[in-house]
Amino acid sequence: MNRQIASITAHTEYMPSRVVPSHLVAPSRLLSSDNASGTHPLVMEALSKANTGHALAYGNDPFTREAEDAFSELFGKEVVTRFAFGGTGANVMALANMLQPAEAVVCTSWSHIAVDEAGAPERFLGAKLIDLPSPDAKLRPSDLHSLHHLFGSEHHVQPRVVSITQATELGTLYTAQEVKDLCTAAHEMNMLVHMDGARICNATAALGATREALRSFTVDAGVDVLTFGGTKTGVMFGEAVIFFNTALAARSLYIRKQSTQLYSKMRFISAQYEAMLQDDLFITLGGQANKSARMLFDKTKDIASLQLSSAPAANSMFPIIAKAPRAQLQEWAHFYDWDTAIDQVRWMTAWDVTEPEIDAFVAGVRALLA
Amino acid sequence: MNRQIASITAHTEYMPSRVVPSHLVAPSRLLSSDNASGTHPLVMEALSKANTGHALAYGNDPFTREAEDAFSELFGKEVVTRFAFGGTGANVMALANMLQPAEAVVCTSWSHIAVDEAGAPERFLGAKLIDLPSPDAKLRPSDLHSLHHLFGSEHHVQPRVVSITQATELGTLYTAQEVKDLCTAAHEMNMLVHMDGARICNATAALGATREALRSFTVDAGVDVLTFGGTKTGVMFGEAVIFFNTALAARSLYIRKQSTQLYSKMRFISAQYEAMLQDDLFITLGGQANKSARMLFDKTKDIASLQLSSAPAANSMFPIIAKAPRAQLQEWAHFYDWDTAIDQVRWMTAWDVTEPEIDAFVAGVRALLA
Amino acid sequence: MNRQIASITAHTEYMPSRVVPSHLVAPSRLLSSDNASGTHPLVMEALSKANTGHALAYGNDPFTREAEDAFSELFGKEVVTRFAFGGTGANVMALANMLQPAEAVVCTSWSHIAVDEAGAPERFLGAKLIDLPSPDAKLRPSDLHSLHHLFGSEHHVQPRVVSITQATELGTLYTAQEVKDLCTAAHEMNMLVHMDGARICNATAALGATREALRSFTVDAGVDVLTFGGTKTGVMFGEAVIFFNTALAARSLYIRKQSTQLYSKMRFISAQYEAMLQDDLFITLGGQANKSARMLFDKTKDIASLQLSSAPAANSMFPIIAKAPRAQLQEWAHFYDWDTAIDQVRWMTAWDVTEPEIDAFVAGVRALLA
Amino acid sequence: MNRQIASITAHTEYMPSRVVPSHLVAPSRLLSSDNASGTHPLVMEALSKANTGHALAYGNDPFTREAEDAFSELFGKEVVTRFAFGGTGANVMALANMLQPAEAVVCTSWSHIAVDEAGAPERFLGAKLIDLPSPDAKLRPSDLHSLHHLFGSEHHVQPRVVSITQATELGTLYTAQEVKDLCTAAHEMNMLVHMDGARICNATAALGATREALRSFTVDAGVDVLTFGGTKTGVMFGEAVIFFNTALAARSLYIRKQSTQLYSKMRFISAQYEAMLQDDLFITLGGQANKSARMLFDKTKDIASLQLSSAPAANSMFPIIAKAPRAQLQEWAHFYDWDTAIDQVRWMTAWDVTEPEIDAFVAGVRALLA
Repeated sequence: MNRQIASITAHTEYMPSRVVPSHLVAPSRLLSSDNASGTHPLVMEALSKANTGHALAYGNDPFTREAEDAFSELFGKEVVTRFAFGGTGANVMALANMLQPAEAVVCTSWSHIAVDEAGAPERFLGAKLIDLPSPDAKLRPSDLHSLHHLFGSEHHVQPRVVSITQATELGTLYTAQEVKDLCTAAHEMNMLVHMDGARICNATAALGATREALRSFTVDAGVDVLTFGGTKTGVMFGEAVIFFNTALAARSLYIRKQSTQLYSKMRFISAQYEAMLQDDLFITLGGQANKSARMLFDKTKDIASLQLSSAPAANSMFPIIAKAPRAQLQEWAHFYDWDTAIDQVRWMTAWDVTEPEIDAFVAGVRALLA
Repeated sequence: MNRQIASITAHTEYMPSRVVPSHLVAPSRLLSSDNASGTHPLVMEALSKANTGHALAYGNDPFTREAEDAFSELFGKEVVTRFAFGGTGANVMALANMLQPAEAVVCTSWSHIAVDEAGAPERFLGAKLIDLPSPDAKLRPSDLHSLHHLFGSEHHVQPRVVSITQATELGTLYTAQEVKDLCTAAHEMNMLVHMDGARICNATAALGATREALRSFTVDAGVDVLTFGGTKTGVMFGEAVIFFNTALAARSLYIRKQSTQLYSKMRFISAQYEAMLQDDLFITLGGQANKSARMLFDKTKDIASLQLSSAPAANSMFPIIAKAPRAQLQEWAHFYDWDTAIDQVRWMTAWDVTEPEIDAFVAGVRALLA
Repeated sequence: MNRQIASITAHTEYMPSRVVPSHLVAPSRLLSSDNASGTHPLVMEALSKANTGHALAYGNDPFTREAEDAFSELFGKEVVTRFAFGGTGANVMALANMLQPAEAVVCTSWSHIAVDEAGAPERFLGAKLIDLPSPDAKLRPSDLHSLHHLFGSEHHVQPRVVSITQATELGTLYTAQEVKDLCTAAHEMNMLVHMDGARICNATAALGATREALRSFTVDAGVDVLTFGGTKTGVMFGEAVIFFNTALAARSLYIRKQSTQLYSKMRFISAQYEAMLQDDLFITLGGQANKSARMLFDKTKDIASLQLSSAPAANSMFPIIAKAPRAQLQEWAHFYDWDTAIDQVRWMTAWDVTEPEIDAFVAGVRALLA
Repeated sequence: MNRQIASITAHTEYMPSRVVPSHLVAPSRLLSSDNASGTHPLVMEALSKANTGHALAYGNDPFTREAEDAFSELFGKEVVTRFAFGGTGANVMALANMLQPAEAVVCTSWSHIAVDEAGAPERFLGAKLIDLPSPDAKLRPSDLHSLHHLFGSEHHVQPRVVSITQATELGTLYTAQEVKDLCTAAHEMNMLVHMDGARICNATAALGATREALRSFTVDAGVDVLTFGGTKTGVMFGEAVIFFNTALAARSLYIRKQSTQLYSKMRFISAQYEAMLQDDLFITLGGQANKSARMLFDKTKDIASLQLSSAPAANSMFPIIAKAPRAQLQEWAHFYDWDTAIDQVRWMTAWDVTEPEIDAFVAGVRALLA
């Protein structure tokens, strides 16, 4: 998560008289993060089914072959799929296949790779991240053009990969056309495009909720490599790096191992993704999270102090709550601060948050703020 | 795995007339690797139990607190436990807490970190691995003394961490006294000791099968940091790095994230280790694997051509099998080549290999070799 | 150099009728960079004197001992001096002594380490550079305070070193009090301060032109480690890294070698710095460069189109010149573009630029612009 | 230097009665290292000549163009020449152009890159060095073949560069045919060949003393990239990396800067190499060093205790001297221990050591040993 991280500790400062009434029970599923959510029952079932007898290690097993095929089918072309353990590892591994020495990654200053990976990209890649400011966490062709002066000078790192996040860290979305325009601009400048799809399930659900929609803003738009994330949307563990530009995958097996992302008992990641792609479960679950966020917005938009100007595009909202009620509310049902300088917090829904839980949370919010 | 990796492909060369008779059914659980094994039912159950509602991400959950406490209890002192995704990641993360620039890791030329991690240590740590030859994959104080000339010269890397593997990559074991002597020598030379315990369950079972036994060759022997591995012995995924020398853990949270090993839904690793430590399940399972290996040895030691000189200390054996029957046997029931130059292979048992499966395998071996 | 680098190639676009009259001879010493300047005669003499017989390699020679003593005397305390080959190497080496894994360097987005070292810091250090915007290329305590939210979160790199440049890449200067305030703020936040003194000779000359002045904005202000640069001011090659905080130098010998900065025939760098410190030659030469810049300013400030608002603090100016005359002028007497988007160029003087050369250059400028 | 480094400190142990007689004056030029030697007068003259007026920085100057042309002429084909500051930096920079992630460098366990660069290759390249044992510090095709099992396995680093040293760290030489055979074997295995020519002047002199001889064991033999070293043989500072395989140089400008090897006032390195290549000065000087070593051998080979079995191939010898006289001798005229375990030392001559100095040294040796 970005910016401010609320520590769940006792607040010693003066507490206002208004508190969450004791009869209001906090929701059992929190709005702190989609990382707080559980594993979907169908994924659990797939894990159990995969747990029979032996399977050759490191992906030489039928589950992995099937999951790889399922990804090629999903994207409508032969892609190279490399599973990784987690999101940071998947991003680092993806980028390691795309960079040469003295090359750089271009991203926004909100991007997970720049802010929330504790410097893993710089450490493992030995590369600079050029993080550009962006009010909505999106990059545009003009951002790339602004780097024109770096190219060809031996003193400067050479921008080589544009890394964008879909849905972004601010909960916004790129349209298919926007991704396409960015990819075109990048390719014209001899750059490659990486998409961090930690919340690609939410993005797909929001942008049409079909496989075609997913393809339109990824493979069809010109993205070269995609980090396909499921952990925030029903998977227990494991992410997939998808090479649409398969030439970039030439050394991907070695790079996966070197980046510590090669899982010995691979079948247990593969089986989960087979379940997620079956009947487009990943879209369904992304949609559920989005729907909960929309619900939460609809039920709170009238509370002026929250300053909720527009409905959430995906599964997060960034309301304003003054310090005193904020601390109380967080103690009652935890969520994170986002930017304490402006009293901004983040409410984030997950695939398993239900309407009664939204209602319970809203009741608490109203008791303190309305 | 080390050395030669048998590809499971068609062998075009001349095939001898003797084949595995068609009535012999290959065992359903292979001897290729303990990484081919499944997840233990109690671990699966723990995963299911942990999958209820929401839990704060990144280890701020009750499962993780309990698992951390369980490790402190296991080792009889307050240790710092940091979970990681996999073995390579755990090793790299452990070492990153122990090294300064221009310092080196001392290990054997058989060690997993030197041979089987595709250069992950060099890449992430930026450090040299000084890999010393050792016939039994064990280091001794005299090995450390042989590096004396490196210390204090600005031209040479400075040896700082001694990394040993228990059980070793050759299936041998350090006695508690041997570890103690090595730790003493290392500490006298201002070095630290890391133990790669990818097969620590097997080692514990073999060296006494009690918590006291485990302590005797780890914390009590002076080991500073331990990679505690469960994946090869019943865990689905996740390894634990245990800091006995807790001062070394001062920056371990940041280093874990930077080394891509911070798992968002941490409860699912923690719950597995709680199950593994409950009633010493990890020792039981390590013992089962060892027992199967012993069984396999006892049932094949009379086949002279295998050149099995001594019973396996843990769960692996390294017999000799000539090329032609080897290929046939591997096609029937896969296992890995070890050193093709001397026709050596590796048979490795796992916690879930049963006596009927050993018998089925031995029948195939006899049909071809005896 | 930053930003735009003018290539000295034929310009195919329309050329205006006005050209530099053929009777105007271009100055023999250019305003392109102080890196274009030569070696001072006293430095050459020192090199010759050092070139007698043999001297033990790697700094075990009397020249190095004397140069080290000279630096301790210069700064009025026992410092640790480590010579390096060049500026980028010296900076990287300095920072490598100050950083732990997952720690970051804070600098401005104009800083040489962030823009002009082709990613050497990220590659060698494996660390993130947090480059903050700054209109005058200077950092202030409030810039450090703005990073407060990063501290203590395992997801974020931990800011550890504040790296400032004196004189800055924009030719501005920190006063002693400004450096002191920044050091105090940094140390209060548990950070260290590195000063990139690639143009410290110019800065010293500009801020008092005495040893006391130099001390006031370095050692006395609380700077921990200083890159003392002479190459731009009369030295042939070699820079010095000065540890005021000598505890940080504990591993500096090893780190120097590992960062490829250990020079075998060290006496030839040491002898140069002895000459530079003798009778404060480094201040004299820095002053000469500054004086030339001031002269150039005084002789051109009336040309309104150049938009020269204030006299240069050190040895560089950033006038505005439209594209067409600019190309002509650069072809006649080369200097670099700075920011082509606003038609800004850089004029930079060196220690060896004389008044007749300034006059010659100004004549050319006037012929085209006035 | 390798192995043991004699510290020039007081020896507290019992000193034998025999000492170097006081009338014997130690030679003014030592046998400790060719790094202790000075700069050749013609190189000094070139430096002076280059020191006139301004020259564009970073190699955009006529001296550099001429030196680059001189190297192409030397090798009889269009090569890419990139100057670096020092030997370690040149090696690291050369290798950085040749490696991809998860690839490794193969060298001997005597090699400078493996032993004497304080881990710079691992730190900057993030790559493993596979250092093979070799009694004469030379690699042979069979050494490469022994690595066959590593190729194609994702668990292992992939050997990509074979790095050999000419003359080797043990003073031995590869014949042209030996280099050719090794290059053929390497290329057949899809590997590249780097030659560390820190003492290539000595090697050239020893192997024919002509340009044709040099070409025969470098460009004509199939070497891809050469580190051409002059610092040990008359140059003040600076080494050249020569790309015979010019495709490998595609990103060499950026990599040079990133590896901290880009020298701003490049003309001062270029001018030195122009002088060195003029009339084959580099061969003359290499020959002088070799001749002195031969002289030293001839004048001491009768001292049986030294165990000098064969004449030096280049400019170093490794005699045996017992501890007590050794310490005395080193105090009188410094040289380095090589392997204290067997009382072996290193005597190394440089281009500027004269016969009277050899005689003076031999007199001291005889006074103590004969």
